[in-house]
Amino acid sequence: NNGYRAAVIGTGFMGRVHARAIRVAGGRVVGVAASTPEKARDALGPLGAERAFTDTAELMASDDVDVIHVCTPNHLHAPLSLAAIAAGKHVVCEKPLSTDAATAARMAEAAAGAHRVATVPFVYRFHPMVREAREQVRSGAVGRLALAHGSYLQDWLLRPGDDNWRVDADLGGATRAFGDIGSHWCDLLEFVTGDRITRLSAQTSTVNGSRGTGAGRPVDTEDLATLQFATRGGLIGASVISQVSAGRKNRLLLEISGSEMTLSFDQEQPELLWQGGRERSGLLVRDPETLSPAAGRLARVPAGHAQGYQDCFDAFIADTRDAIAGAAPDGLPTFTDGLRAAHLAEAVLTSAREQAWVEVGE
Amino acid sequence: NNGYRAAVIGTGFMGRVHARAIRVAGGRVVGVAASTPEKARDALGPLGAERAFTDTAELMASDDVDVIHVCTPNHLHAPLSLAAIAAGKHVVCEKPLSTDAATAARMAEAAAGAHRVATVPFVYRFHPMVREAREQVRSGAVGRLALAHGSYLQDWLLRPGDDNWRVDADLGGATRAFGDIGSHWCDLLEFVTGDRITRLSAQTSTVNGSRGTGAGRPVDTEDLATLQFATRGGLIGASVISQVSAGRKNRLLLEISGSEMTLSFDQEQPELLWQGGRERSGLLVRDPETLSPAAGRLARVPAGHAQGYQDCFDAFIADTRDAIAGAAPDGLPTFTDGLRAAHLAEAVLTSAREQAWVEVGE
Amino acid sequence: NNGYRAAVIGTGFMGRVHARAIRVAGGRVVGVAASTPEKARDALGPLGAERAFTDTAELMASDDVDVIHVCTPNHLHAPLSLAAIAAGKHVVCEKPLSTDAATAARMAEAAAGAHRVATVPFVYRFHPMVREAREQVRSGAVGRLALAHGSYLQDWLLRPGDDNWRVDADLGGATRAFGDIGSHWCDLLEFVTGDRITRLSAQTSTVNGSRGTGAGRPVDTEDLATLQFATRGGLIGASVISQVSAGRKNRLLLEISGSEMTLSFDQEQPELLWQGGRERSGLLVRDPETLSPAAGRLARVPAGHAQGYQDCFDAFIADTRDAIAGAAPDGLPTFTDGLRAAHLAEAVLTSAREQAWVEVGE
Amino acid sequence: NNGYRAAVIGTGFMGRVHARAIRVAGGRVVGVAASTPEKARDALGPLGAERAFTDTAELMASDDVDVIHVCTPNHLHAPLSLAAIAAGKHVVCEKPLSTDAATAARMAEAAAGAHRVATVPFVYRFHPMVREAREQVRSGAVGRLALAHGSYLQDWLLRPGDDNWRVDADLGGATRAFGDIGSHWCDLLEFVTGDRITRLSAQTSTVNGSRGTGAGRPVDTEDLATLQFATRGGLIGASVISQVSAGRKNRLLLEISGSEMTLSFDQEQPELLWQGGRERSGLLVRDPETLSPAAGRLARVPAGHAQGYQDCFDAFIADTRDAIAGAAPDGLPTFTDGLRAAHLAEAVLTSAREQAWVEVGE
Repeated sequence: NNGYRAAVIGTGFMGRVHARAIRVAGGRVVGVAASTPEKARDALGPLGAERAFTDTAELMASDDVDVIHVCTPNHLHAPLSLAAIAAGKHVVCEKPLSTDAATAARMAEAAAGAHRVATVPFVYRFHPMVREAREQVRSGAVGRLALAHGSYLQDWLLRPGDDNWRVDADLGGATRAFGDIGSHWCDLLEFVTGDRITRLSAQTSTVNGSRGTGAGRPVDTEDLATLQFATRGGLIGASVISQVSAGRKNRLLLEISGSEMTLSFDQEQPELLWQGGRERSGLLVRDPETLSPAAGRLARVPAGHAQGYQDCFDAFIADTRDAIAGAAPDGLPTFTDGLRAAHLAEAVLTSAREQAWVEVGE
Repeated sequence: NNGYRAAVIGTGFMGRVHARAIRVAGGRVVGVAASTPEKARDALGPLGAERAFTDTAELMASDDVDVIHVCTPNHLHAPLSLAAIAAGKHVVCEKPLSTDAATAARMAEAAAGAHRVATVPFVYRFHPMVREAREQVRSGAVGRLALAHGSYLQDWLLRPGDDNWRVDADLGGATRAFGDIGSHWCDLLEFVTGDRITRLSAQTSTVNGSRGTGAGRPVDTEDLATLQFATRGGLIGASVISQVSAGRKNRLLLEISGSEMTLSFDQEQPELLWQGGRERSGLLVRDPETLSPAAGRLARVPAGHAQGYQDCFDAFIADTRDAIAGAAPDGLPTFTDGLRAAHLAEAVLTSAREQAWVEVGE
Repeated sequence: NNGYRAAVIGTGFMGRVHARAIRVAGGRVVGVAASTPEKARDALGPLGAERAFTDTAELMASDDVDVIHVCTPNHLHAPLSLAAIAAGKHVVCEKPLSTDAATAARMAEAAAGAHRVATVPFVYRFHPMVREAREQVRSGAVGRLALAHGSYLQDWLLRPGDDNWRVDADLGGATRAFGDIGSHWCDLLEFVTGDRITRLSAQTSTVNGSRGTGAGRPVDTEDLATLQFATRGGLIGASVISQVSAGRKNRLLLEISGSEMTLSFDQEQPELLWQGGRERSGLLVRDPETLSPAAGRLARVPAGHAQGYQDCFDAFIADTRDAIAGAAPDGLPTFTDGLRAAHLAEAVLTSAREQAWVEVGE
Repeated sequence: NNGYRAAVIGTGFMGRVHARAIRVAGGRVVGVAASTPEKARDALGPLGAERAFTDTAELMASDDVDVIHVCTPNHLHAPLSLAAIAAGKHVVCEKPLSTDAATAARMAEAAAGAHRVATVPFVYRFHPMVREAREQVRSGAVGRLALAHGSYLQDWLLRPGDDNWRVDADLGGATRAFGDIGSHWCDLLEFVTGDRITRLSAQTSTVNGSRGTGAGRPVDTEDLATLQFATRGGLIGASVISQVSAGRKNRLLLEISGSEMTLSFDQEQPELLWQGGRERSGLLVRDPETLSPAAGRLARVPAGHAQGYQDCFDAFIADTRDAIAGAAPDGLPTFTDGLRAAHLAEAVLTSAREQAWVEVGE
């Protein structure tokens, strides 16, 4: 063990992904807490955790825990993260920190004030080809940026019978499709371009007005969102966010065009980066032999041996570990980035409600 | 010869495409007119035309011409089409009829009043897989439509040195990227869905503020446009239009999601239609053995033997020929559709200028 | 009309493809002959032919016919071509000339002796990206060739109920899958590489031992063939030929690897050529702006406006027309190439029967 | 810790992959041995190992080691595995066990005689879509199998300067391209089909006759191999194996056609399985919601969240762990499968040398 002593709150799919990444990073899953002590005990095996906490208070008070991973439904992200920071812990909190920017700001300030590492898993940043795209923008190879567009499409909420706590505004927040996945798209855009969306215009749609078994209960979080935007750097763009696009599982597409080149990345084929040129276009493959150092450090296996989602997550946790140990890993998503996502979510909701362009808060 | 006696005005690339389609349809290219008699004579061979007219007046007055193909720069579309109709001719006029809706309306009314067939080459309608998509929407297989999105991206105007009459608002019209290719995207959307965009919000960008050799001259038509829209039927969507996306040659993507299925069509791979389903997705290939009749009638060669752009154009002219002969071919784009495109172009320009959602005229 | 006066024998799908290409080339379809005068008359419209011949003798004797297109079942290719040459006509004969090399040799000699243009539609040579591949090999960009492989897969004979004259050795020849489509693959390989298969080892399989309605009748032509080969130039390779591969419609894949580059061409996506490099790989699109002259001359429409099968055929006939007019178009497939295909077919049959490597005749 | 106490011999890339999978499986990397004690010590961190052994003898004698992972150059696979079994350990040995079938047979017999679990990382079996393909064959959905073909292509040995111990027959074995990667292809074929290659015909080629810096040293292991084969079940097929195909990184393609369906799997896009049908074809995505149980048990993350190479390896080690614990995981590759690979390698070498079809030993 290398000293990364973590506790995980939440035992769902994300909790298991976090726990595995902790172990791969050479850390210990000291313990786990859940909504009930029984659930925590049941999760010991699946999470590879050493003990089950009775509740989060016990977990917060444990001296042998340095980092707390908050993997609960969204409405608990803020109180648990704030409590963890108050208890002197580092925090890894699932996104969204909050869809209310004021709350997210409080969280970012608390972490900064307490000198704690506080990260948010915008994990698509850890695909090597995303880093490669960012390096190509940085190097000037893409030229002056003019256009960015894409989509993030899923289908797991296609049908009225599809239900989940995320659908409920009280648990998941006032924005669902944008808050859950649109925020990833915007983070990736800003991460790769180094630019900022300054104004946007959005619309949303709730396709399934009620969800659940039987007659269902009314739903007012959005299934769909479209947005147009302009950035500080002068590019314009658009994106489409959907959780009801049959056949699209986790289709995050980002395409950026500059005066010299177009880059296109598809999260479902993360080993490739399309580079469009007027004379010649190509598919760059994730190849440790040829990647830039910033991308190459995330390439664990040779070209043609696919890396995937868990590899991203593992790299994110490894970088969080290194940050706690005092390093400053490039591109680590922190509560500041989580706050940024909250500002964007507020702008999207406001624009959709007022049917107008709005400025994005900073 | 089957009685389709055509004359072509304009000897550029589009003129040659029209002339070839006329011959494939079993018609005659009776003659050709150009900006000068010399140019008309030089085009006789390339167009397979029988004679060169001195000017368009002579062409309009010719008794052995029944159909006039207007393949000139945009600003001449309206006067030449109106003159042809006044001369009792049928007309095939390149798009846009006009980006001014009032003018386009006059053209549509003139054709209707004179009982002339007047068509506009929204030729992507003639890809068999576009027809197949339309049939699947019609049949209910796609379900209640919720979302439509896509893009139309080119790169031929990427660089400041790239120039063309289309760049000049006096010759090409006040909107360029949207007028030239965005109009195709909207036509295809409305054609496939049978639905209408009722309101939209757009932004435009002119990336290369001057074009041409040396210092260049100022350009104010747009290189880029993004739009969001809602339809009468209740779907929402977005599209991105660009003539400066390096590596994208003629990338028209249209994706439509309904409560049962997603359909995705890429004009650069026109033999395929992607059908997304939650349990299973597939690529439907253009196969005369399995297509619906409406699509199958446009499938000329067996599956796996690619059809292309010229095949679309040939089918469009063949249907125009049949319409003149009294038939009512399904899906033939007429001046009414050209007027529709003008309403959309006006809405895009207004919305971009006023930075607001606008209603689309009818 | 430019003096290409053709008559077509055979009114099936291939007859219509030939007739259309003749008209696109500016030629006349002076007449058509079929197995009965009635069939010939019925084909007048579909072929755009001027008159129906009573029989092939009348057609051969017509003074206003310069070129005869033989589009009949295979067993008539040799007698009709030889008769046409004897009558002083140029000939375009569907492949295979004959699967018997001695007969094919007689045909090639007859054409040469009579100084007639005699061509065979190995039309995949006319995809611009095939020409581009050939130019890249010629230029040395691919380096010393080491490996060639691929497949030609169809599914139209998948089921026992699928039947056709081609299945019958008396009408179609002793080899079916290889003779019909494998010959295309080998022609493309030798055309692109400029190299020759000198020895090969093959196996064949007849999956559906009987075909037709009811109990069916016995079939002994092959549904499948695999072959390994070595060339004069020292490369080795393998290919798989099938008419029973469900879902593969006309999948001709050719991949060539040299010391510097790999080229890969898929006939079902003929607008693209994959160029593999150790550091960087790319998809070259058919773009008249960037192709080599040898490929560019076959690019009729701008990049992104798909060319297809008929475009290949049109180019083949245009080149045949020019050859008759005295030109020497690069890469025109003649009876010499048809003879080559017969030598390969004989070698495949011999090798499969004797289960041994065999030398390919010249 | 769940009782899986492993030691790793070899500290290269494969050693690290094994070590990580051991930790993910909840096991301990008790220790590591290398060619020198220094190398072993240096690998402690990268492998997450608890201690460094002086040599393999010390490792074999350790009571707290239950499983030995042999990750050395090929020529040491047999002696180390035999020693480990003799020491009462379970073994995971990198492939090839031996390219000499007699030696491989001794290894398999030793493991069986000692009732030790002895596995070989044919890890591509652990891609969920490979399991799905196998289930579809098993279920009869593919029908009677007729054809299997594909390739395994890499480019890391493209150039004469590319060198590695694998190139040297004394260290890597008499067959290189086939032994190293062709064996994977054949294993996958036989695994998915449940069928056996009974006879084959092969050819090999050594493109770079010398390798290394300066003038290089002579190389006689093959860079390329092609093979044709027939199976007990009556299908025929062909495959192409290359380590010198520029741009192909780890391109393992396997396509199987039966009387009802074609299945196609590409190891570089392991989340997809193409299902070809005459009427309709589709891409099945790795979706835990829809996979068969045999495939679904290997799906760790939701659809659209890519799994990759390490996930395969992790699953292989987890199944090895479970086998040691007494379970009988479906599809676990053992020394019996390693022996099978040796028989195939011998047949390939014999056939290539004798230029004849040969029977494959059992």
